[in-house]
Amino acid sequence: MSYSPELSSVLESLQASNGDLLRVISSGREHVGTLMPHHDFSDPDVLVLKLKSGYNIGIKVSVDDDVSVLERAARREPPRREKPAVEGRKRVAIIGTGGTIASYADYRTGAVHPALSAEDLAASVPEMADLAYLDPKVLFSIFSENMEPRHWQELAVAVSKELNDGAEAVIIPHGTDTMGYTAAALSFMLGEIPRPVILVGSQRSSDRPSSDAYSNLMAALRFALEQDVAEVCVLMHSGPSDDEFAVHFGTRVRKMHSSRRDAFRSMNVPPLAQMKDCEVEFNAPCRRKSDVKVTPSIELQKDVLLLQYYPGMHASQFSNLIVSARGVVMSGTGLGHVNRDMVGLISRAVYGGTEVVMTTQCLSGATNLGVYDTGRDLINAGVITVMDMLPETAYVKLMWAMANSDDVRRTMTTPLQNEMGERREMHV
Amino acid sequence: MSYSPELSSVLESLQASNGDLLRVISSGREHVGTLMPHHDFSDPDVLVLKLKSGYNIGIKVSVDDDVSVLERAARREPPRREKPAVEGRKRVAIIGTGGTIASYADYRTGAVHPALSAEDLAASVPEMADLAYLDPKVLFSIFSENMEPRHWQELAVAVSKELNDGAEAVIIPHGTDTMGYTAAALSFMLGEIPRPVILVGSQRSSDRPSSDAYSNLMAALRFALEQDVAEVCVLMHSGPSDDEFAVHFGTRVRKMHSSRRDAFRSMNVPPLAQMKDCEVEFNAPCRRKSDVKVTPSIELQKDVLLLQYYPGMHASQFSNLIVSARGVVMSGTGLGHVNRDMVGLISRAVYGGTEVVMTTQCLSGATNLGVYDTGRDLINAGVITVMDMLPETAYVKLMWAMANSDDVRRTMTTPLQNEMGERREMHV
Repeated sequence: MSYSPELSSVLESLQASNGDLLRVISSGREHVGTLMPHHDFSDPDVLVLKLKSGYNIGIKVSVDDDVSVLERAARREPPRREKPAVEGRKRVAIIGTGGTIASYADYRTGAVHPALSAEDLAASVPEMADLAYLDPKVLFSIFSENMEPRHWQELAVAVSKELNDGAEAVIIPHGTDTMGYTAAALSFMLGEIPRPVILVGSQRSSDRPSSDAYSNLMAALRFALEQDVAEVCVLMHSGPSDDEFAVHFGTRVRKMHSSRRDAFRSMNVPPLAQMKDCEVEFNAPCRRKSDVKVTPSIELQKDVLLLQYYPGMHASQFSNLIVSARGVVMSGTGLGHVNRDMVGLISRAVYGGTEVVMTTQCLSGATNLGVYDTGRDLINAGVITVMDMLPETAYVKLMWAMANSDDVRRTMTTPLQNEMGERREMHV
Repeated sequence: MSYSPELSSVLESLQASNGDLLRVISSGREHVGTLMPHHDFSDPDVLVLKLKSGYNIGIKVSVDDDVSVLERAARREPPRREKPAVEGRKRVAIIGTGGTIASYADYRTGAVHPALSAEDLAASVPEMADLAYLDPKVLFSIFSENMEPRHWQELAVAVSKELNDGAEAVIIPHGTDTMGYTAAALSFMLGEIPRPVILVGSQRSSDRPSSDAYSNLMAALRFALEQDVAEVCVLMHSGPSDDEFAVHFGTRVRKMHSSRRDAFRSMNVPPLAQMKDCEVEFNAPCRRKSDVKVTPSIELQKDVLLLQYYPGMHASQFSNLIVSARGVVMSGTGLGHVNRDMVGLISRAVYGGTEVVMTTQCLSGATNLGVYDTGRDLINAGVITVMDMLPETAYVKLMWAMANSDDVRRTMTTPLQNEMGERREMHV
């Protein structure tokens, strides 16, 4: 939606355009700030100003209000696509998928919409262009709760193309809700990669003063360029400070808070690396940059379920669902347990050809079906156990293993992408 | 299974019985330790000795091995049931349910079986009897993955009876796997209580030297007797030290590690109290001891599902399950999101009379459906949101609310047992 005819004509008569410094007197209060772009979903009567404090405010303006232009700022030109050869800068591909990192708040409803393009995002952090030749493109523009396995596949193809075309890194702005699932999917699909693939999100929309979009993006770029790492990673703020970040293996990371900036956590391992100011500290070995060509394996068995066990889960309710699925990942209790009824159902499902993988809803620690009777019954039923692999990662890996391996059990129980520890003695 | 005839006759000829100090030379190695009870599931050829180091070992003994009694220790008499009036000690009911806290390791398979009774457990910590008149009874003897909602109901009745009969506290040894679910169920079912109800578990079976069964039990007893608290709580070790414990509200606690002693965590709030040595520090207000009579509300709507959302969850797969259920708790991504397909399914289910509650699989932080389009679509679909309530607690509460309230939405969104924060502004 554009501005109302009245507001349009006021702005036109002032020759005010985005980036100009405006004074608005509305309902008796004066506001001075830079005029921000008007988004499709915004109220036609609302101007958005970025105040000197850095805060953006939305002001409902009526025709009776005073609006004047204080200063006509030079507007930043959109970044030109320069050939990397010309400048000698390395090319970094930025593949936009949508999410809060590329969204803006609607000041009428307070809601956040996906809108900004990867181009806008890259352009909004001019410091990034000083470090590399940024090559942004928009693959999707969706919130991550609408990401589906087919999007992972499309993304894996696009990332592979960039890497094989010589990109120094691929940075993927992504909605945080399912970023962990996507990171795990890319880890398995891409296999060995020559350069880092870094997913980066934002818990605050990018037009908000407290947004973590820019700092996360900038940190991802620096990490990708300066460190000798060739892994699929997630990079996000790791604490209250603006200059603290953690870099997580894509298969070990989980969103553990619905709204905090430092919501992402490596589970069962420390993060691959921690960044503070410009210091980077590594906690684990990882693959180095190389000239390997990527040959992605993007096939997935999509008929796989992820189910959490709970007391009162009735085998009779879940019987059709589980028996008819090709694969099931359960997050059992504790070391990987379910009730007797469900053991029977799982046994029937496995007998019928369903692959059943057991994980733990504790999220930390490993499964171990050798300790209690229930566990041994599950082993006898043919359940596959995957040590300390996250339920979400096991779900993604099972889809991938069933489409790409002749020996699903062996593939599931072999660490491929740092997704699980080596088999070891359990102390229970 | 008892000892083999050969081993039986050796032990008989020595007049060796449990508690005696034995020397066993087996396969050329000498072992000296106290003879432990022989359990039904143990190998008939295996003696279990508790070594001076505190460790228990199982020794396979053949008839050719040397076995001698070094010392015939005086065996502890089983504690007599004394009337509390006689001794002036307060009566503490111990209601056994099973689980690792009341289990022993099978030294043949290394597996752990439920076996010890609440009586055995109480008797095994003689220091406990110094503090109170212990009144143990066994309600169930099952591992907690086999606890079902009907067990919560039976337990609530048994606890109510003890409290109304004047017990100073009720301590419930419970398997850790589903202890959080049971604690939440008791919280809602019991309502206001005159004295504390403390669930206590163990991550190491009680015949292992590293067992946390006794220390957790002892800490629960002391907390119950010495502190002015009348809540349903979970008490467990909170750190590596033997004398650190946390007391959690029953509705806020979650098992967050499959095997560590300090697996239990309060989510979204600090624990009600922390204990170190004999110091107790409270982090929240709570209900005080009183003379109120308990009138439990144990009815449950058992046709409720708990489902985690994940990318690739197809509405078509879950359609029958969700539409035919009376209630569904979803753990959505981030602030409480699911994909467009699932929004449609949820909308149909709500229209058909299913109560649908949204929580977050992040486990920390609150849901907020007012921020993104998906969220507002879910609100329009009629989804109930429950702030920062855990998915598992929301599942239990929905079962309870649907059976005990005429206004399920209102009951779900009103804090009753510390299960959720007060509604507040969300900063996203």
